[in-house]
Formats: sequence, C-alpha cells, structure tokens
Amino acid sequence: MHEFHWISSYFAPLAHPDFALSLRDDAALLTVPSGMQLVISTDTLNEQVHFLPHTPAELIASKALAVNLSDMAAMGANPLAYSLALSLPRDTTEDWIAVFADGLADMQQQHGIHLLGGDTTATQGPLSLTITAYGLCETGNALRRSGAQTGDDIYVSGTIGDGMIGLAMAQHGIMHPLRTRYEQPTPRIGLGKRLCGIATACMDISDGLLQDLRHLCTASHAGAQVDLARLPVSCDAQEWIKTEGLSLTDLACGGDDYELLFTAPESAQNTLAQIAQQEGGSLTMIGKITEAGIWAIRDEHGNSISPSTLGYQHF
Amino acid sequence: MHEFHWISSYFAPLAHPDFALSLRDDAALLTVPSGMQLVISTDTLNEQVHFLPHTPAELIASKALAVNLSDMAAMGANPLAYSLALSLPRDTTEDWIAVFADGLADMQQQHGIHLLGGDTTATQGPLSLTITAYGLCETGNALRRSGAQTGDDIYVSGTIGDGMIGLAMAQHGIMHPLRTRYEQPTPRIGLGKRLCGIATACMDISDGLLQDLRHLCTASHAGAQVDLARLPVSCDAQEWIKTEGLSLTDLACGGDDYELLFTAPESAQNTLAQIAQQEGGSLTMIGKITEAGIWAIRDEHGNSISPSTLGYQHF
Repeated sequence: MHEFHWISSYFAPLAHPDFALSLRDDAALLTVPSGMQLVISTDTLNEQVHFLPHTPAELIASKALAVNLSDMAAMGANPLAYSLALSLPRDTTEDWIAVFADGLADMQQQHGIHLLGGDTTATQGPLSLTITAYGLCETGNALRRSGAQTGDDIYVSGTIGDGMIGLAMAQHGIMHPLRTRYEQPTPRIGLGKRLCGIATACMDISDGLLQDLRHLCTASHAGAQVDLARLPVSCDAQEWIKTEGLSLTDLACGGDDYELLFTAPESAQNTLAQIAQQEGGSLTMIGKITEAGIWAIRDEHGNSISPSTLGYQHF
Repeated sequence: MHEFHWISSYFAPLAHPDFALSLRDDAALLTVPSGMQLVISTDTLNEQVHFLPHTPAELIASKALAVNLSDMAAMGANPLAYSLALSLPRDTTEDWIAVFADGLADMQQQHGIHLLGGDTTATQGPLSLTITAYGLCETGNALRRSGAQTGDDIYVSGTIGDGMIGLAMAQHGIMHPLRTRYEQPTPRIGLGKRLCGIATACMDISDGLLQDLRHLCTASHAGAQVDLARLPVSCDAQEWIKTEGLSLTDLACGGDDYELLFTAPESAQNTLAQIAQQEGGSLTMIGKITEAGIWAIRDEHGNSISPSTLGYQHF
C-alpha cells in the first residue's frame, strides 16, 4: 500500500492541525478570518525544465515551496498553507519520499505554514510537482501589478542575476555559493508585507527582470525607463560575468531571481530606505515609470538597447 | 510569446470576474463569505496513467474538472472556482489549447464555476494537469469520512463498475455508451449538497468501492458488512461482465466510478428515498456499518470473500 503508507507516514505529520483533516478526507476545510482575503497561487516544477535530474529531494521540496512563497511575497501576503500534487516515477523509493518530506518540514518551520492536502500519483514521465500556496492579507490591502503611476520609481530587492548564474554552475557541476541562489531562493515574505500601502505595484522576478517589468507595465497601462548601470549585482556575479564575457543585459533577462520588483512614488524614498535597513537587504532604484508606449532600456554604457528575448519562455 | 498569448487568448476569458484579477497578478484574491468555509481539493491527471494517449483535449479538460468537482460533491460543497496547472509537451499546438479551453468553458457553464489562476509550463514528459477545486459550505456543515456509526446503512449512488468497463472499452477502441461513464463522469454535486445534515459520513468512489469503503471505515474507526448481491449494476455492465466472465467483486474493486459512498442512520431511509426521486438517480443500500475490526464482504453467492487488491493503487 505504498501511496497510502507514504501519505500517512510522511505527509500526515506535515498537515495543518485544523484545516487539513489529517489528509483523510476528500478535501480540506479552510476558515478565513473576517476582514481577510485568501491569496492563492500555483506553481509547477518539472524535472529537466525547472530543476536538473538527480537534484537532491530536499532541494526540490524547498525550491517548490520557495517559488510559491515568492508569489505570496509579491502580493504582500502572510503565508498560511499549501497543497501538494506529486507525480512520481514508478521507481520512486521510500527513502526519496522521506528526504523530500524532511525538506518540506524545514520550509514549513521556517515560514510557519502547513500542508493542506493534495494528490500523490504515478507518472510515466519525469518527476513533476505542483504546489498551490495560500496566504492571508487584509481585504483590499494586497499588492498588485496594476497600480504603477507615471513618475514612480522602479525598485528591485537584493541582487539580480545570481539565479541565472547559479543555474549555469549547477549545469556544469561547479560548487559555488551562487548555486544556493538558484537552488534555494529566499522568498521575500517580510519585505512584501512591509510594502503593503507603500508600493503602487509589485511582482516577483521569476522569468527575467525585463520580461517581468514588461508584464507589470502592461498591467499598469504604463511604460518604463530603466538604467541597467544601476542594476544591483553581487560581487560573485560581477566576477562571473567578466570571466564569461556576459553583460548586465544578460543578467536582466535571466530567470530564477525571486527578488521583488516594485514601484513607489518618490515621496516613499525615506520610508523605503528604513525598510531596507530593518529587513537587512538592499532595495535599488533602477528606473522610472513613464507613460504607456515608452520602453527605454539603457545598458551599462548608456546605449539604448532592445533585447530580442526579455526573459524565459516555455514554448 | 506562446504561453502568455495562450493565457490571454484562451484562459483569461475563463477567469473568475472578481477573484482571478484577469490572470495578470502573481496570485488570485478570494473573499469567503462570513459563516462559510472554503473546501479545497486537488487532483492530478497524467497521460498514460489517468487517460489514454490521444484522448481528445475537450475530454481531458472535462474529466480533470469532473474528478475534482466529485470531491466537492463528496464534501457537500457548492463549487466556486478552480486553479489549473498545465504541464504541456513542447509540441503542443494552439489548436489543442483552443479545444482544451472549450472543454473547460463547457464545464464552467454547467457548474457555475470559474478559473482562478494557475501555471502553464513545458514538460519533457507526457501531458500532466493538476486542478485544485474550491467550493463553499456552511461552517461545520461539510460531509466528512469520519462520522459513520455502528448500525448505519451504507449507500452508493448510481451504478458501480461502469467506469472500469468504460476504460476497458476505450483501451480496446470500442465505441459504446459506457465509455462516457469513464471519459465524462458526472460529479454528484446536487446529491452531495442534499446529504448535508443527513449522511453521517461520505466520500466519492474513485479508486474502487471496497478500497474507498475501507478508507471511510478507517476514518470512522468502524467496520463494515457488505452484500455485493445488492450492488447496483447497469444493464450494459451486466451484459459486459457476462461476456467477459467478470464478477461483481471485480466491479467493486474497479476505479473511476465517481459515485458517492455514504452512510446514514436507518431513520433516514424515507428521506433518502425522496432525495433519490428528486435528484433523478438511484441510491442503493449495500450493507451496514459495524464495530471496528469487522470487515465482512459477501459475494453474489453469499460467500465470504477477501479480495487481495481492493482497488486501484499507483505504486
């Protein structure tokens, strides 16, 4: 009785004490406190597409949760729970399940969340997992992509491009601190919550800064002017792009950053400086929101550029 | 820009008018009315495991929604919305997406539900889709698996075994009405809602009646006594099992029924007869809940049986 044994032995201990009904019913029953909205996001990770074959089970677990929690951060939500749909090759071992569940348990503890339910199935293909994350925010208070105004400053948190370089290192089997940025991204939950009421628009950067900024601009019916010379780049990444002959434009079009991209009026600059200090991370202004129709990207030499591919696309 | 074009052209028109934010944000924002609980279930369908290769896109769409709505029925919930995670082979065409979205649209209209969000990704493997369904029920009123009491009657809705036979027919390329029972199961939403306050325990039958009854008994700390001679079997299924030399036990251990299995006290018999009439479907008493530790299954000849496999298992 593998699947039922796995569920009761490894997943039931992760279950939400009130809402998951011990994973024994056909569904979970969630109560949302009055005055709050439920924030719901879904992200799939497929082997060979989102992670390399032979990635350790605990890293798959923590990344799958991290990318979903990053969506919670992008909305300014407080994470609450998640559902897990696991499609497993038929030769999956109990050891793998045990290590995978340990990875989930670590992330649960870090973020105060619990498993709500899901489905465990067999697949003839590579490992695939879909997580749906649930969070709470005060009604009407969630961050959205659609509120950017002409004249707003454009910010990114942390450093950009580490994820893309970390992937290259993982592909070449290079052990290096930047691999962690690709394999175990940190969802910016604390920052997201603090941006509620301050940022006019927000999203997380998953498919490439420029592509994601384009989506934010579309949702806000706005344009953007960006100076890539301002792009925050880690020392490790600066060294790597020199060695490999890459440019800042490459970093701005690479995926897997899981930093926040947001806009705010100039009047918020002092408040944002305080937030950056209190959160212990950097916030960097990289450009300005403009009227719709303008899309002005300057590279590190001040030249106007229009990259043919702004970021990662699946098809 | 395939994936973004597909989302805006084919999925955005399916989006929930209030909660899905036009599928343009990092998450959906759901408001749950006060006094209600959110019912959440997740089911994955993998090609070659849950449906045959070359299954028409609209049938995949409607079955994926139907099996999730069946979980809503099992809880007595009113379906509201769903998230969709779609892992597509890279050679997926726009035509396929269009037909798939049409299948979703039909089901949405039938059940008054909308798309809330999701993820569209590429896979190196076979097509895989995960749906998370959301429904509402009055707080404390949901049907559960855990309330069956010694002496309760055990009921099933509709007929049992059609799904299993429909699968065999689909595998052999036989055109026959029973294929519809496998390919397009009907979630028993209306019945589920009417059973709230009447049934002591309820679940849907997806992996085989006997295996699912065993789960219900475990959750209720109870046993069961079942007469398979009482099993409701359609005329088409009766003919097929004669031709193929199958038994009622085979039907009771086959999957894909998506009928409801529930328990109720004897005092509810008249009420249940009325509900069956009003819902236009049959409800059949097949046995009794007993004390824990008893598991007494009699076949159509009155012989005590203990099938080695009670239903479908993935591993």
